[in-house]
Amino acid sequence: MKKLVIGLPKGSLQESTYALFKKAGFTIKGGSRSYFPSIDDEEIEIRILRSQEMSRYVEHGMLDAGITGLDWIAANGSDVVDLCSLVYSKQSKRPVRWVLAVPNNSDIKTVKDLEGKKIATEGVGIVERYLKENGVKAEVEFSWGATEVKVPDFVDAIVDITETGSSLRANNLKIIDTLMESYTKFFCSKDAWADEWKKQKLEKIALLLKAALDAADKVLLKLNVEEKNLEAVKGLLPALHSPTVNKLTDNGWYAIETVVDESVVREIIPELKNSGAEGIIEISLNKVVA
Amino acid sequence: MKKLVIGLPKGSLQESTYALFKKAGFTIKGGSRSYFPSIDDEEIEIRILRSQEMSRYVEHGMLDAGITGLDWIAANGSDVVDLCSLVYSKQSKRPVRWVLAVPNNSDIKTVKDLEGKKIATEGVGIVERYLKENGVKAEVEFSWGATEVKVPDFVDAIVDITETGSSLRANNLKIIDTLMESYTKFFCSKDAWADEWKKQKLEKIALLLKAALDAADKVLLKLNVEEKNLEAVKGLLPALHSPTVNKLTDNGWYAIETVVDESVVREIIPELKNSGAEGIIEISLNKVVA
Amino acid sequence: MKKLVIGLPKGSLQESTYALFKKAGFTIKGGSRSYFPSIDDEEIEIRILRSQEMSRYVEHGMLDAGITGLDWIAANGSDVVDLCSLVYSKQSKRPVRWVLAVPNNSDIKTVKDLEGKKIATEGVGIVERYLKENGVKAEVEFSWGATEVKVPDFVDAIVDITETGSSLRANNLKIIDTLMESYTKFFCSKDAWADEWKKQKLEKIALLLKAALDAADKVLLKLNVEEKNLEAVKGLLPALHSPTVNKLTDNGWYAIETVVDESVVREIIPELKNSGAEGIIEISLNKVVA
Amino acid sequence: MKKLVIGLPKGSLQESTYALFKKAGFTIKGGSRSYFPSIDDEEIEIRILRSQEMSRYVEHGMLDAGITGLDWIAANGSDVVDLCSLVYSKQSKRPVRWVLAVPNNSDIKTVKDLEGKKIATEGVGIVERYLKENGVKAEVEFSWGATEVKVPDFVDAIVDITETGSSLRANNLKIIDTLMESYTKFFCSKDAWADEWKKQKLEKIALLLKAALDAADKVLLKLNVEEKNLEAVKGLLPALHSPTVNKLTDNGWYAIETVVDESVVREIIPELKNSGAEGIIEISLNKVVA
Amino acid sequence: MKKLVIGLPKGSLQESTYALFKKAGFTIKGGSRSYFPSIDDEEIEIRILRSQEMSRYVEHGMLDAGITGLDWIAANGSDVVDLCSLVYSKQSKRPVRWVLAVPNNSDIKTVKDLEGKKIATEGVGIVERYLKENGVKAEVEFSWGATEVKVPDFVDAIVDITETGSSLRANNLKIIDTLMESYTKFFCSKDAWADEWKKQKLEKIALLLKAALDAADKVLLKLNVEEKNLEAVKGLLPALHSPTVNKLTDNGWYAIETVVDESVVREIIPELKNSGAEGIIEISLNKVVA
Amino acid sequence: MKKLVIGLPKGSLQESTYALFKKAGFTIKGGSRSYFPSIDDEEIEIRILRSQEMSRYVEHGMLDAGITGLDWIAANGSDVVDLCSLVYSKQSKRPVRWVLAVPNNSDIKTVKDLEGKKIATEGVGIVERYLKENGVKAEVEFSWGATEVKVPDFVDAIVDITETGSSLRANNLKIIDTLMESYTKFFCSKDAWADEWKKQKLEKIALLLKAALDAADKVLLKLNVEEKNLEAVKGLLPALHSPTVNKLTDNGWYAIETVVDESVVREIIPELKNSGAEGIIEISLNKVVA
Repeated sequence: MKKLVIGLPKGSLQESTYALFKKAGFTIKGGSRSYFPSIDDEEIEIRILRSQEMSRYVEHGMLDAGITGLDWIAANGSDVVDLCSLVYSKQSKRPVRWVLAVPNNSDIKTVKDLEGKKIATEGVGIVERYLKENGVKAEVEFSWGATEVKVPDFVDAIVDITETGSSLRANNLKIIDTLMESYTKFFCSKDAWADEWKKQKLEKIALLLKAALDAADKVLLKLNVEEKNLEAVKGLLPALHSPTVNKLTDNGWYAIETVVDESVVREIIPELKNSGAEGIIEISLNKVVA
Repeated sequence: MKKLVIGLPKGSLQESTYALFKKAGFTIKGGSRSYFPSIDDEEIEIRILRSQEMSRYVEHGMLDAGITGLDWIAANGSDVVDLCSLVYSKQSKRPVRWVLAVPNNSDIKTVKDLEGKKIATEGVGIVERYLKENGVKAEVEFSWGATEVKVPDFVDAIVDITETGSSLRANNLKIIDTLMESYTKFFCSKDAWADEWKKQKLEKIALLLKAALDAADKVLLKLNVEEKNLEAVKGLLPALHSPTVNKLTDNGWYAIETVVDESVVREIIPELKNSGAEGIIEISLNKVVA
Repeated sequence: MKKLVIGLPKGSLQESTYALFKKAGFTIKGGSRSYFPSIDDEEIEIRILRSQEMSRYVEHGMLDAGITGLDWIAANGSDVVDLCSLVYSKQSKRPVRWVLAVPNNSDIKTVKDLEGKKIATEGVGIVERYLKENGVKAEVEFSWGATEVKVPDFVDAIVDITETGSSLRANNLKIIDTLMESYTKFFCSKDAWADEWKKQKLEKIALLLKAALDAADKVLLKLNVEEKNLEAVKGLLPALHSPTVNKLTDNGWYAIETVVDESVVREIIPELKNSGAEGIIEISLNKVVA
Repeated sequence: MKKLVIGLPKGSLQESTYALFKKAGFTIKGGSRSYFPSIDDEEIEIRILRSQEMSRYVEHGMLDAGITGLDWIAANGSDVVDLCSLVYSKQSKRPVRWVLAVPNNSDIKTVKDLEGKKIATEGVGIVERYLKENGVKAEVEFSWGATEVKVPDFVDAIVDITETGSSLRANNLKIIDTLMESYTKFFCSKDAWADEWKKQKLEKIALLLKAALDAADKVLLKLNVEEKNLEAVKGLLPALHSPTVNKLTDNGWYAIETVVDESVVREIIPELKNSGAEGIIEISLNKVVA
Repeated sequence: MKKLVIGLPKGSLQESTYALFKKAGFTIKGGSRSYFPSIDDEEIEIRILRSQEMSRYVEHGMLDAGITGLDWIAANGSDVVDLCSLVYSKQSKRPVRWVLAVPNNSDIKTVKDLEGKKIATEGVGIVERYLKENGVKAEVEFSWGATEVKVPDFVDAIVDITETGSSLRANNLKIIDTLMESYTKFFCSKDAWADEWKKQKLEKIALLLKAALDAADKVLLKLNVEEKNLEAVKGLLPALHSPTVNKLTDNGWYAIETVVDESVVREIIPELKNSGAEGIIEISLNKVVA
Repeated sequence: MKKLVIGLPKGSLQESTYALFKKAGFTIKGGSRSYFPSIDDEEIEIRILRSQEMSRYVEHGMLDAGITGLDWIAANGSDVVDLCSLVYSKQSKRPVRWVLAVPNNSDIKTVKDLEGKKIATEGVGIVERYLKENGVKAEVEFSWGATEVKVPDFVDAIVDITETGSSLRANNLKIIDTLMESYTKFFCSKDAWADEWKKQKLEKIALLLKAALDAADKVLLKLNVEEKNLEAVKGLLPALHSPTVNKLTDNGWYAIETVVDESVVREIIPELKNSGAEGIIEISLNKVVA
């Protein structure tokens, strides 16, 4: 039997990745400690790996596809095929950023001031490329963790991952440049993409993962409206997807249903009511394919 | 930008209040320890306060609106505008009561027997008003907690909050009068109500909070039925909201859907089936606006 | 008032049983330690009992009905009326099995080799019947637990409950026969079945329990399709239940909705999209009555 | 190498048994789920078993020695050699009792009234012997647990284990007879006792277990006293073990130290101080051998 | 039997109070939720009360003695007899303080600037006395909690309890005066002190509580030393309590033991070793009576 | 004020390091998340760092001293001064080892067979030195974790840390060589060692840390013996440290006390009793300086 080998990231993303696959229709079993979890699809094999190493093993063909951050793909300089971005939830829609940070009172103002300095980072590859692009020579030191507490005692500057910058501020650091932004990516090797069976399988999985992710931020709205109010009500609904409108059998009313972003519901429900809509209900969705 | 400042109650109601706002479409962030949580609506500002103090600060205009129990509004004698009652769940639909309790073997039978006695309570204001209304003079002592264990050793009677009375019974106390019943209230100051922008914003929020609360106890029932059974099936559905009936395209069947109280489903599903309904399904709801 | 007394199993099944009744429309309260929990139906009384004893007390009329495994009904040899099987979830659809196991290196190959040997088991009744059917005489010893670690030091063979066999393998045991397979059963006494009021009540409860269980593995799919693609799309949907098809009011499109097994969704959504379906959404269900 | 195989009880006693062996000088490793834990003495092998089965396997020679309750030894009627009693702590010095209990309003007043009745119990052997001794014929039914909630609905009386009787009282039961009292026992088989090497090893282990248990309730008191107060102070110390008295080198004072029951310390320290003792200190003990 | 009724504080001090009584020789049972725990001394009865109310009930004779903070005794203005201070551990040796705090940027610099302002506090009695002593008139408002977040939005200043001031600083407040410092106190009523039996019992309990508290910060040091080094070594030991010196039987050495503050051990052990001391050991203590 | 800056390891060792310092007399506060915890000695400053980086920052003078494994000192090739080994407990007395491991069925038998292969490890420095010493050329790949699951799919061999080898065996790997053994080390920089004040401070700390560690495995034995049995009893005590023998004042008995390894107590207590020793007690120790 043909098999597709997919690498999933160990650690903070692991639980949400399992939950996403579950919503997409694939049940992964094996606990957070197993590196060889099982999946209820005989054509797929799962391996658990550190995010940092994922793209290296996909590029070299030990895995067909993987999920990891765009940052670590870049840090490894891996040549792989992008399948789709996976933004797990509203909260994390803000991308993580790799930033250059120095103490609030540092003399270092721009990347140019790093000449001859010492920089600690978990992403040595990302920083070395950045320095080269800027024509700066500096010592880049691999940091095993807690990078933000190393300035100013141990190094002059750091390059670290941040979402909101609050941990940096709490350590009296200021951001002076952003090296890159990063999203979670589902990607595959060039060889897998060239194999028709694998390509189709990967596209199906990507479609289902996206359908599950999209559903997290959308809801189904249903409502009834009399003919005289029909156009007013339709006018309030987001234009993106035209609503399903259905004339009811016995009373001159219309049933409308439409999928909308959850974030607009609190605005339009009061307006729909004011425009004559009745029986307005909101329902959660598992998957949405536009 | 105009701002509406809303006070939410600290403590046992806090988590359910956050969940209710979430269902209504507003995400509050900041952990249970923060007194200044953020909310994803730039027109609203949240403050966390003790239930006991809420109405005082709304009345005096430091807050535009607040959520707290009717009892504490009464205890403070606050002059505020009622927006709506918020009954968080089936379980707590039973109102909390402020009751006068004495030991099972006490000679105190009615409020009149309190003359000259000592009473412990967390709601000194409520008790003093009650005594005055009944023309009784007694010593009212503020209790910092565990009021029910203070009789008979420390005081002659207590006025305490109870839902089922079980804690009182467990301490060998009997209830001899009920001073008031209380529900959770969403309310605002008279000044906020007089400000047109604030009034409209408050009404929208109240509508959405109610829509989320109502949805907790209701479900959507869908079913198909042949024309010959249509009237019988419709006769089984609660009369309150007329169901949406739709003749299907190709086969002489009708699709019916209707929102019903979850509590009646277990009664009507067997009857619907007996009357010829097919493909009966029940779906949860996030919001319901009748 | 007439009452139906139902026994529910203590232990690993208890929480899932309460959850199932909740989904079916009955709220049981009283914590995992109470043996007399309350239920929000005045016609029902709940008793909590060990699975092993349930059928004995139903047969003898102390309970009207009960939930326990088919295995313990068999172990007790109880003469009761089967109402329905309750398979709580996809994961446990695999039945538990009572198997005869011996050490990997044992000389015992078949049941016949047990002659004169010592066997430990929690289900003495099941094993004694099995030996008798096979015309074998052996010593059957009641095991209070941890049966699988008693071979070979304490006994020659064991009869134990297993789902996947992994615990047996981990103890270097091999399975040489299967005595029986077991599902969870909802069953009642013959007397209860003969009482018309109790019978109707039991049938209603069984219908609702089944409706809740069926909903766990099914979802509602909704989609829109143009007339030209209608037949192709319908051809992709499982034949079991014909979908609800509805011609929309204003544009030559059709709205289709159908309940499908969740397990097929990941296969058909990509195909539906390829065949021209739009606005495909998937919704969870609380109850399904076909 | 010669080996001594000791069975330790699974369940509520397991953790305290491990702790007792640790205090006695033996470290058992393997977690609460392992049935074959390791011990840091090559001459000992540990097996974990249910309390109920322990004495059966010791008597039959599969284990050399075991720890379990006297009650289960009696229930099995096992013929074994008593090494010592193990009372794990002050709290449980009160023995557990097997009692005959009936509903508060039952007509059953004495064992004689059980004639023809039904009794549920986990200790069928204990109850059958008791009935025989009293010349009573009754049906004894094995109870898998929660015995105390089976009267009066399922049986007429129960025989259950109790320490304080509070669980029985909470179920509206009264105790009408005590069948036996039980302590935890360390015991061995007759064969092990006849083997000189095993006997000596067992006696050493028993000595150390007792030394560790005795230390839990005793402390070392040290104090200094002038010659003039020496006799008065000595008179206050418990007579059981004569204190160690030592004349100090340089000042006419005496140092006294003595091991006393912790329970008397709160009485004698104030008196010692009043009698002129100085520098009184109390020290915990790991082991005490009188 | 004569009884002494002692009130112990509910809440954060409760667990450490139970532990202190345990170390002193009294076992209190009943869980953190019970208001009537049992104690293994028939002459004592325990009641659990809020710290804030304790002294009121002792003064009025409903309790003989109690444990609470000096601050709440002062807040209530209670006239009671001080038995001893109880400082539970090194960590909390720093007294709690009641401080007057205002926003960092407030114009209020001294108590005088409070004239006509609004102050929130949990200790209304303490603040009113303080204002009176300073001849200042201001509005004092009872705060139900989270007092530190009420400035500047709700009040002008607060009087709050603090140990390190960190919570105030985190809320951008500065301390401008200290109203009082507070320790935990064991105290009794004047009536109890006048009763000889109660007085003696209270003195015994106070002695034992102090002995247990003192032991927490002290250790026993033992060491051996040759005659030639004896004086040097003795010179290093704290002068407070003269050490116990004992000439050993057979070799011209001396054994020394002495109780010292744990905090000095790290200084003197290296010096003792340098001065010729051998076999230095340190032992924990349960109780110390100097 | 002069300051000594000490680095302590983040992670699994952190809690036991804090506990060790506590036993040695130094209280470190600041929670497991703080990188700048406080210590109750004004002459010391604590920094928390990853074990892997510690020796690098000590060598370069950013820290005066540190605690980390000998392995990471070696991996960094750091030139530092060894102060003492710290073996935290009996359990971990077994050193951790860096081993070369391959699949059970691999053709790689010795280090020589690694020529041209790919090796994954967390300790790239350790492996490169090892290969060089053996004259082997191979690709060494930094592993971010879970190294043991990378063979055979991703690499040919691994070098990993192990204590018992059980995790390797569970992954079907065999150990074919040991590169180094490692203990936890307390060490300092050459500059700190050359500074007389720092050197003395470091020696004091090392003495106290060792005293605390030694006490974990030792106990004080005390016993009384009559003159006639004195020599026999002394003969049973370990020869290492001569016991303290003291003739008692009044009765021809001798009191003996001696510090012994806890591991021998279970052997000698039975023998001591047999030889006439009485009143044998065992006491725990906080610190031992021989």
